[in-house]
Amino acid sequence: METVAKKGLVTTTLLEQFKGIVGEQYVFADEESLEHYGHDETERILFLPEVVLKPRTTQEISDIMRLCNEHLVPVTPRGAGTGLSGGAIPHLGGVLLSTERLNAIIDIDERNLQVTTEPGVITEVLQESVKAKGLFYPPDPSSRGSCFIGGNIAENSGGPKAVKYGVVKDYVLNLEVVLPTGEIIWTGANVLKNSTGYNLTQLMVGSEGTLGIVTKIVLKLIPFPKYDLLMLVPFKSLEKASEAVSAIFRAGFTPSALELIEIDALQITSRMLDSYAVPIPDDIAAHLIIEVDGNNMEVLMQEMEAISELLQQFEAEDVFFADDAQQKAELWKLRRRVAEAVKTVGYTIEEDAVVPRAELPKLIHGVKELGKQFDFHAVCYGHAGDGNLHIRIKKEGIPNSYKNAEMQNILRELFLLVKSMGGTISGEHGIGLIQKDFMDIVFNENNLALMRSIKRVFDPNNILNAGKIFDLN
Amino acid sequence: METVAKKGLVTTTLLEQFKGIVGEQYVFADEESLEHYGHDETERILFLPEVVLKPRTTQEISDIMRLCNEHLVPVTPRGAGTGLSGGAIPHLGGVLLSTERLNAIIDIDERNLQVTTEPGVITEVLQESVKAKGLFYPPDPSSRGSCFIGGNIAENSGGPKAVKYGVVKDYVLNLEVVLPTGEIIWTGANVLKNSTGYNLTQLMVGSEGTLGIVTKIVLKLIPFPKYDLLMLVPFKSLEKASEAVSAIFRAGFTPSALELIEIDALQITSRMLDSYAVPIPDDIAAHLIIEVDGNNMEVLMQEMEAISELLQQFEAEDVFFADDAQQKAELWKLRRRVAEAVKTVGYTIEEDAVVPRAELPKLIHGVKELGKQFDFHAVCYGHAGDGNLHIRIKKEGIPNSYKNAEMQNILRELFLLVKSMGGTISGEHGIGLIQKDFMDIVFNENNLALMRSIKRVFDPNNILNAGKIFDLN
Repeated sequence: METVAKKGLVTTTLLEQFKGIVGEQYVFADEESLEHYGHDETERILFLPEVVLKPRTTQEISDIMRLCNEHLVPVTPRGAGTGLSGGAIPHLGGVLLSTERLNAIIDIDERNLQVTTEPGVITEVLQESVKAKGLFYPPDPSSRGSCFIGGNIAENSGGPKAVKYGVVKDYVLNLEVVLPTGEIIWTGANVLKNSTGYNLTQLMVGSEGTLGIVTKIVLKLIPFPKYDLLMLVPFKSLEKASEAVSAIFRAGFTPSALELIEIDALQITSRMLDSYAVPIPDDIAAHLIIEVDGNNMEVLMQEMEAISELLQQFEAEDVFFADDAQQKAELWKLRRRVAEAVKTVGYTIEEDAVVPRAELPKLIHGVKELGKQFDFHAVCYGHAGDGNLHIRIKKEGIPNSYKNAEMQNILRELFLLVKSMGGTISGEHGIGLIQKDFMDIVFNENNLALMRSIKRVFDPNNILNAGKIFDLN
Repeated sequence: METVAKKGLVTTTLLEQFKGIVGEQYVFADEESLEHYGHDETERILFLPEVVLKPRTTQEISDIMRLCNEHLVPVTPRGAGTGLSGGAIPHLGGVLLSTERLNAIIDIDERNLQVTTEPGVITEVLQESVKAKGLFYPPDPSSRGSCFIGGNIAENSGGPKAVKYGVVKDYVLNLEVVLPTGEIIWTGANVLKNSTGYNLTQLMVGSEGTLGIVTKIVLKLIPFPKYDLLMLVPFKSLEKASEAVSAIFRAGFTPSALELIEIDALQITSRMLDSYAVPIPDDIAAHLIIEVDGNNMEVLMQEMEAISELLQQFEAEDVFFADDAQQKAELWKLRRRVAEAVKTVGYTIEEDAVVPRAELPKLIHGVKELGKQFDFHAVCYGHAGDGNLHIRIKKEGIPNSYKNAEMQNILRELFLLVKSMGGTISGEHGIGLIQKDFMDIVFNENNLALMRSIKRVFDPNNILNAGKIFDLN
């Protein structure tokens, strides 16, 4: 969208000092690097940093922060750059600090069911490493094949398993953090329960890289469930599909995934992937993807049958059961690649609203009504079991919500609706750059003042990912 | 232990203003009231407040806080006074603010599996109310029959179910809070996932009434599991019993409770309760209480059998299965009343250390060694599945750790040991008044400086539960 290169903050002297800290080969100022690190997966926004640094250690990051804090140089920390709210975009120029070289899994503690890792490990790599030891780290965003665990912590990511297993915050036990002023702390302890002082661990999780740079992470693990079953359930009515979601929980079931995909989104993705493994009939409005998991296959089969039966009350059509590992993988691939697919055909604006689960039908209805009123098209999909809906918006001539007055107006209406249902702006993508102007909808001024003051406590010179979540004023 | 009545902070004018806010009949300054509200269940410590206030509404609490903030009067908030770290003790005199009249369950939302409640509701009352609708709120401290849900939030309480279901922090979605300066905020939203701004909800949970007074609480609920099975497993060796704990999890089981009780503690409790329902053989060193729960009885029976079999490797003696609801209740009563029982026979000092689960044998061994070295007797019990051990200490002539140099020295040794294992000071009781001098063991000065600064952000005049967790300096 925009290319603003704020120059002159990183002086030649500073550049030399950076080289001294991380080594000359890990300081990048070439055009290609600057452009690569100037954007993430958010809409179509580009801001060039002045320099990209790739430190290897906590100490190097500490040294960089001290220097930048002293010279008031903005620093934008970055994981894999898969974020959807602009958290890793260096909109103030300055230093882009990539954590990609802090990529070691330090210790898988099988005695205590814990893993200690660096932030630059790809989420899927971490998952597979612990799975090899029979252990399970559930939270995985759709981008798990490329996103970093450090970024997941910054955004408090969720993913499809959150409905049964919780989100990132439920697995983080302890964090090593470099503060914006360069000091290093551990936030907690490697324990399952902790009532010792303020919960700085949870304050860091979801703080979008504005309070510190996470350099080591201790995560809780659980035993990997032995079996899972997966089905795709078509509905002719979008309302009925979304009503069915809360009925499943009210009946006492806790699926390990409960996703909703509107038909447009599924068809676009299916076409992009050239996938014929999953049948998509013509007259369908939406699908639910339902997974159950556990250690007893017979119990799971009973559960799936009972859920299928329950869904008949909501006019579900013929259920498609994924028969084997390949079909399951195919179905999950379809779900995971929806965001990417719909973006390619113009749905560039993504919202991440979350409401109490049973309000989902009302939210979807509201989105469609807003679409008519403001002349945009929206496809809905996402983590229905959590009440977390991804709303992808396509509006002729407006590919970005960022700084677009018309789109800002539309989104304000959307978030007012969400708030009226007890919901909030973001369930798992964060606020970052593109939603910060809506914080007043869900928090009063006293609350926002507390958040700003906390930011000042951690970052007195406002140099670390400044202007994300909110502006200081 | 001590009775210090700091007088003169609450002037006659202020007293009249308090009466104007809460009504004359809810302002108490008689000796009996002051003494009742001058202590909680911590050791043997008494500090009298000048006045006890019992407001009914958020607005009344806000008015009280504005007034106290203006006049720099210390305020100690209090739930049911069942705390074990002195969090509710008015050690600076001033105002004791009881939340006991904010005792309404506002709404049980069966559609969304949530409950909205005031803080003065007894935890067991809340549990039973939602259970009547088939719903489950798992965290319940041993004091669940008398403690308040607000106090549970202040301490981030756990209880026996935490091992499978998590602690209070895992159920709190949203809080209405009166800040020390009188402003009112909501911390979050009524949703299962939230990546919108800093997690002030989690910052409040476990902050021990130092950052604000919680006046409304939105909790997540889950479906109540249909069945549970309970067994008591004796061991001749305390080490073997504690080694068995982590083996159970490593084998892939997740019991809904896994408690350990040393034989002394069980015998003392059994005698106090005059209980013969549970057999306690002579030559036993410790017991594990193991519960599994779920929706399929057959699966549970298989699980229990498999666990029993596994325990044979750790030289478990004959397992006692609780046959019916009454036996289960009896066994849980034994466990829940241990703290009270051992206190009556001189074990007045209670520690709440928590370590990674597999380090439990090392911790217990360490405690016993310290006992020999420093000439004290300790009984251990608690939430072994979480690595959270309650250590009750009896030392001739020293009933309090508070301000006792000899005992402080002993506890410092204990917490250094705990820290060396990756553990921390408190798993569920909080730091309060009596453990604050040990915070430097588990947090570095940069971390403590952040916590103090956060306290200042919320409470610029340091009037709300000042001198708990840490002193400002």
